[in-house]
Amino acid sequence: MSPKFRHVALIGKYHQLSGYSAPANPAHQPLAEIAEFLHAKGCEVVIEADTAIHTGLHQRFPTLTVDELGQHCAMAVVVGGDGTMLGISRHLAKYGTALVGINQGRLGFVTDIPLSSYRETLFPILLGEYDEDVRPLMHARVVREENCVFEALAVNDVVVNRGATAGMLELRVEVDGRFLSNQRADGLIVATPTGSTAYALSAGGPMMHPSTPAWVIAPIAPHMLSNRPIVIPDSGEVMLQVIGGRDVSANFDMQSLSTILHGDRIYVRRSEHSVRFLHPQGWNYFATLRKKLGWNERGYRP
Amino acid sequence: MSPKFRHVALIGKYHQLSGYSAPANPAHQPLAEIAEFLHAKGCEVVIEADTAIHTGLHQRFPTLTVDELGQHCAMAVVVGGDGTMLGISRHLAKYGTALVGINQGRLGFVTDIPLSSYRETLFPILLGEYDEDVRPLMHARVVREENCVFEALAVNDVVVNRGATAGMLELRVEVDGRFLSNQRADGLIVATPTGSTAYALSAGGPMMHPSTPAWVIAPIAPHMLSNRPIVIPDSGEVMLQVIGGRDVSANFDMQSLSTILHGDRIYVRRSEHSVRFLHPQGWNYFATLRKKLGWNERGYRP
Amino acid sequence: MSPKFRHVALIGKYHQLSGYSAPANPAHQPLAEIAEFLHAKGCEVVIEADTAIHTGLHQRFPTLTVDELGQHCAMAVVVGGDGTMLGISRHLAKYGTALVGINQGRLGFVTDIPLSSYRETLFPILLGEYDEDVRPLMHARVVREENCVFEALAVNDVVVNRGATAGMLELRVEVDGRFLSNQRADGLIVATPTGSTAYALSAGGPMMHPSTPAWVIAPIAPHMLSNRPIVIPDSGEVMLQVIGGRDVSANFDMQSLSTILHGDRIYVRRSEHSVRFLHPQGWNYFATLRKKLGWNERGYRP
Amino acid sequence: MSPKFRHVALIGKYHQLSGYSAPANPAHQPLAEIAEFLHAKGCEVVIEADTAIHTGLHQRFPTLTVDELGQHCAMAVVVGGDGTMLGISRHLAKYGTALVGINQGRLGFVTDIPLSSYRETLFPILLGEYDEDVRPLMHARVVREENCVFEALAVNDVVVNRGATAGMLELRVEVDGRFLSNQRADGLIVATPTGSTAYALSAGGPMMHPSTPAWVIAPIAPHMLSNRPIVIPDSGEVMLQVIGGRDVSANFDMQSLSTILHGDRIYVRRSEHSVRFLHPQGWNYFATLRKKLGWNERGYRP
Repeated sequence: MSPKFRHVALIGKYHQLSGYSAPANPAHQPLAEIAEFLHAKGCEVVIEADTAIHTGLHQRFPTLTVDELGQHCAMAVVVGGDGTMLGISRHLAKYGTALVGINQGRLGFVTDIPLSSYRETLFPILLGEYDEDVRPLMHARVVREENCVFEALAVNDVVVNRGATAGMLELRVEVDGRFLSNQRADGLIVATPTGSTAYALSAGGPMMHPSTPAWVIAPIAPHMLSNRPIVIPDSGEVMLQVIGGRDVSANFDMQSLSTILHGDRIYVRRSEHSVRFLHPQGWNYFATLRKKLGWNERGYRP
Repeated sequence: MSPKFRHVALIGKYHQLSGYSAPANPAHQPLAEIAEFLHAKGCEVVIEADTAIHTGLHQRFPTLTVDELGQHCAMAVVVGGDGTMLGISRHLAKYGTALVGINQGRLGFVTDIPLSSYRETLFPILLGEYDEDVRPLMHARVVREENCVFEALAVNDVVVNRGATAGMLELRVEVDGRFLSNQRADGLIVATPTGSTAYALSAGGPMMHPSTPAWVIAPIAPHMLSNRPIVIPDSGEVMLQVIGGRDVSANFDMQSLSTILHGDRIYVRRSEHSVRFLHPQGWNYFATLRKKLGWNERGYRP
Repeated sequence: MSPKFRHVALIGKYHQLSGYSAPANPAHQPLAEIAEFLHAKGCEVVIEADTAIHTGLHQRFPTLTVDELGQHCAMAVVVGGDGTMLGISRHLAKYGTALVGINQGRLGFVTDIPLSSYRETLFPILLGEYDEDVRPLMHARVVREENCVFEALAVNDVVVNRGATAGMLELRVEVDGRFLSNQRADGLIVATPTGSTAYALSAGGPMMHPSTPAWVIAPIAPHMLSNRPIVIPDSGEVMLQVIGGRDVSANFDMQSLSTILHGDRIYVRRSEHSVRFLHPQGWNYFATLRKKLGWNERGYRP
Repeated sequence: MSPKFRHVALIGKYHQLSGYSAPANPAHQPLAEIAEFLHAKGCEVVIEADTAIHTGLHQRFPTLTVDELGQHCAMAVVVGGDGTMLGISRHLAKYGTALVGINQGRLGFVTDIPLSSYRETLFPILLGEYDEDVRPLMHARVVREENCVFEALAVNDVVVNRGATAGMLELRVEVDGRFLSNQRADGLIVATPTGSTAYALSAGGPMMHPSTPAWVIAPIAPHMLSNRPIVIPDSGEVMLQVIGGRDVSANFDMQSLSTILHGDRIYVRRSEHSVRFLHPQGWNYFATLRKKLGWNERGYRP
């Protein structure tokens, strides 16, 4: 057989995989097993540099940095949780690398292959039998006066929030240059469909199917009861300007920037890049949603 | 000058306009004034048949039924509230008639021109200076066994709900043939962006900008706390199958069908038709939203 | 030993216990086993009349109607779910009968003893070692013009709702004769703490600890976003007057009254009677709440 | 006439009243007018020391510190908003001073007398014609290891929240020594009925009538969808223990304490003191609620 994906990168959340001390026998580790499995299937396996060092796999396989992987491999297998995957996917987005997520026990939204069954599910994917799931990325810029002082990508969300000991935050919100509202709240979340089931859901936002070309703007504990979540097309550019509050910070997929000043403007638009996840054929977002939300069991209303 | 729209229909919520008895002097009525105004501007004015009779305007202008209007006129001016407009727009959708809404005091989402200022705002629209606002329509079918027993269009929403003295409704929900969830609730709303600020908002759904190509599926008083509103692309077909509950009914923009049986399936998809609203140039959905939700004033949290 | 409770009634949800046909060997049924257990412990066991007939236990034990049980027995053991228990408890409230609830697999809020462990838990209760849990009851009257046309007790809630094919309901709400608000909604729930985890929770109400001397008034899908649930002292009398809507009905612990007319007033006040549940010592409402809401497991936010 | 309240203190939010520079003619200021009015009615007027200096009223009336006022005066007239009143009321609670609140244009919940009408409303109150409105206070202690490191009173709420750039906070919640839940959220609010219409309402909590003997525990953006607000009797002691999160802080009526460590326990119980507000006779909490929430106007659902 000849795999569609010849060069395959392997990336892991190594701390959880190997413990904090050097593993005595790396071949017993899940990552090592997966690497050997891919190798046996005819792939040229490359290990992400940090993963390699922590697992000892650099003794057996070539290693590359994440950026080098992006340029070299059309596919990367990521072992870990959704958090690990989101970090990697932001990093690899500009290379268009296809990503396959293997979880270690707890089903993730985008790390949907259980470690226990990777043998059956990875192989067809290597051969080109998969469901492709393209997710939009947000590109965010922080503009102070006329200068961009920070830039970041986000797969889940961009969040602006008040300082812990501060009163309410006040934000001016515009969409495509049009004034939407002044929001007084603990904070404001702009989320992608991918992020709609994360923080935005806790703040009262709707779930959004990943193929919905939309963002949701959701306030956190808003002062006005009518300040409810708003869904807008993802072609729109959202601008958040800080007009009140102390110790304001912003974060991008939970990566924080703590020095947002009054007058700063945060621009959020769709990135030219996207994230590409590959799932086993027949993958079903709704099935994942049902499992994650416990809809298979009897309800939470007692 | 020569108006872009030569044949203009005029439709009114005549009960509120004329009172219950025949008006002594129809020329003093708002509809009569608007008709004369359009006529003076060079339009050939046609009055909707019922409107004409109730206002006495059939003595002055030609009249047509709504369907005839649709075939004959590229534009219709509707005087009334959003409810009136929604009814007319469903009816005229298949003709592609452009609609202009004049309200009589209470700002509507789609009847955004106050009666007091129609003179200044209508004229530029007649000349072709307007902002066009195209809204998707939902097409719904009720299928019993293999037969379609009912069909309807909806601008706002399709709602399935339990009988008043019944316990919970149970629905199986599918999107594009894929199982989403079994919902136990008082009811379920599938809403367009236009409908997102109506009933769905009361049920906890998000607001959706009219240009978002999405539906929201919002349960009413769901049994499970995790059954939260879900946004999906409007390219998807939603199927609701009644699997439990008594005296189940469905409605389409609040037009009720009271005989939904167990096993009946309600299919909701995007109609091939759309509704076209014309607004004065510079119209801004967010401005309307702010006014309707009172965001100009200080907050509702005391 | 000499039990504190000498005369003990046994009441079951017999359909689920025995199937629809007469049981071949009633002694194998849970109810029969519990009856023999109580008998062996020195209790004089009385079987509720309907339960007796459906299980065949009338051949072995004396039987009484629910009202006779109330007069004769200081304690009743109820086998079934919360629904069964609520029905019985309303009926027995005026007699002050202590109630012990045994569930058949699914933990209930007030039927908290699993069938599998009744032997260990019932015996101490018979001896007087228990935690007593007194719940307030609501007494509701429907007043038409000046006449009371209906009266009922409710352990969970009093609900007024719109007809299935009707538009919104409009209610005038007063507390102790003072105007609170006009509510336009699908319906309105007045719930006890016991009922706060039932329908009211689905409508967005808070959970209330059973010993909180308060009611919650919770609108269902309210027209106004600021019409949020309101908690009031349970010493207050709530009055709901129907001022708009069609086909309005009311229900009392889900027992429906379908003929509520415009102008009808529904008065809800604390009943002079209460319900007395006995739990095994160390019983903990919060533990039940955690189990029912799945708080032991990892969260529902994915 | 002889007023019931002979010694009356006057306290103002002087910055707003007098501007930042010394007033040219203090007699023209609202506080000066009210002081003269009280004097003319036979009261011995005492001005709070800071208020006196900023308004120049120390030249005309005797002055006392807030604590001295508490010991000397049975009644204090507070001119300002709810924030001003809450600060004063916490301070005076231990003296049992009755408080009358005059607002300067924007209706407050507890500063319900408009400046424009104090002449008509204050006089009857001085004579003893008023509605008394007693509000419970919370007493909070922060315990580190076995030592109380902080103590405070709160009229509205006690809030624990995460640092601005930190992930979720994790709290263990107990009521009367019984484990309720582990809450993962942005924060947690324990609010009195008075505070139920403030921050807790934004977080999704219910409104609570001031005479309800209950607290509400409301999580802010909780991780689990079933972590809904819980109402408990105000006789209970709530314990919040920080078990996860960074830069955790607590605040008491928005007065912040920024150094909450892992393991710290915050105990909240009903204070032995209460706050006593006097309102004009016929005062009605619901009327204030309706005004503050805009229930007199047409709804927010468009």
